[in-house]
Amino acid sequence: MTDMSDTDERPATGAITMTPVGRVHSPRRDPGDSDHWGDVVSSILVEPRFGEGCLTGLADFSHVEVLFFFDRLAEREDYRPLLRPRGRADLPEVGVFADRGPRRPNRIGCTVCEVVSVRGRELRVRGLDAVDGTPVLDVKPVLRQFLPGVVRQPEWVDRLMAEYFGE
Amino acid sequence: MTDMSDTDERPATGAITMTPVGRVHSPRRDPGDSDHWGDVVSSILVEPRFGEGCLTGLADFSHVEVLFFFDRLAEREDYRPLLRPRGRADLPEVGVFADRGPRRPNRIGCTVCEVVSVRGRELRVRGLDAVDGTPVLDVKPVLRQFLPGVVRQPEWVDRLMAEYFGE
Repeated sequence: MTDMSDTDERPATGAITMTPVGRVHSPRRDPGDSDHWGDVVSSILVEPRFGEGCLTGLADFSHVEVLFFFDRLAEREDYRPLLRPRGRADLPEVGVFADRGPRRPNRIGCTVCEVVSVRGRELRVRGLDAVDGTPVLDVKPVLRQFLPGVVRQPEWVDRLMAEYFGE
Repeated sequence: MTDMSDTDERPATGAITMTPVGRVHSPRRDPGDSDHWGDVVSSILVEPRFGEGCLTGLADFSHVEVLFFFDRLAEREDYRPLLRPRGRADLPEVGVFADRGPRRPNRIGCTVCEVVSVRGRELRVRGLDAVDGTPVLDVKPVLRQFLPGVVRQPEWVDRLMAEYFGE
């Protein structure tokens, strides 16, 4: 059993400051847009300060993981610790950490996308569920070794995701 | 083609402030430790401010994605825009966004882990490659719909990852 002494209840650390590495350029501009992301092609333009070589080698990977900051939705509504995903009455109430919705602590989105092309500081991807102008925090290559094997998930996820990436 | 006007070169946004939601409690304490993470069982203790229900429903998922902040290594060395993964001379030079190493802009780590148990605000996971005390930024359930199908990656990744999760 992991040691859980009283001192472990102190706050983790102070605030952490991050700076976006670039932005999403997407044909999707409405933060209320919530489905059919699978075929959306977006560009991520990394800022000049990272140099022309910062994406070198990325084209050898079929997929990237894009970490971004939900800056639009978050202005309109804060998270609830317990919620029904998308506010849908037909879905069960779960904790905020059992949902992937944008209204969450630290407002980080994380999505695996297909690499379409890499050219200088421009990375084009397919399937990024972030609207135009979204700040990007990081891009990582998807390594087979980091992927799970068979995953188990509750049945309500299939109802939630029915049209999210697909038609 | 996505519109890439001159104005798109302005910085993405100002600084973004994040606050850890909890910390990693792990038997692994040496930030220099870099391999054999697959069987490591760690706990994430979420802070009391999120309430007792914030992990509700998570036990129905086999895997979670843990986003954390590389606070240890980052103090010792900053990132390079072009690097050889782990500094290994036998691996090719790639851009910082084509590697998953901890020395990177914004220092976010993101790892899929197996759920071992959920009890109140304590989440136990297997395979988290973060040392004891690491600040956690977010926890998300792994949904099948967010996983890629077949992935392609360069051959050097297999050499890099040979002992990372396995024995």
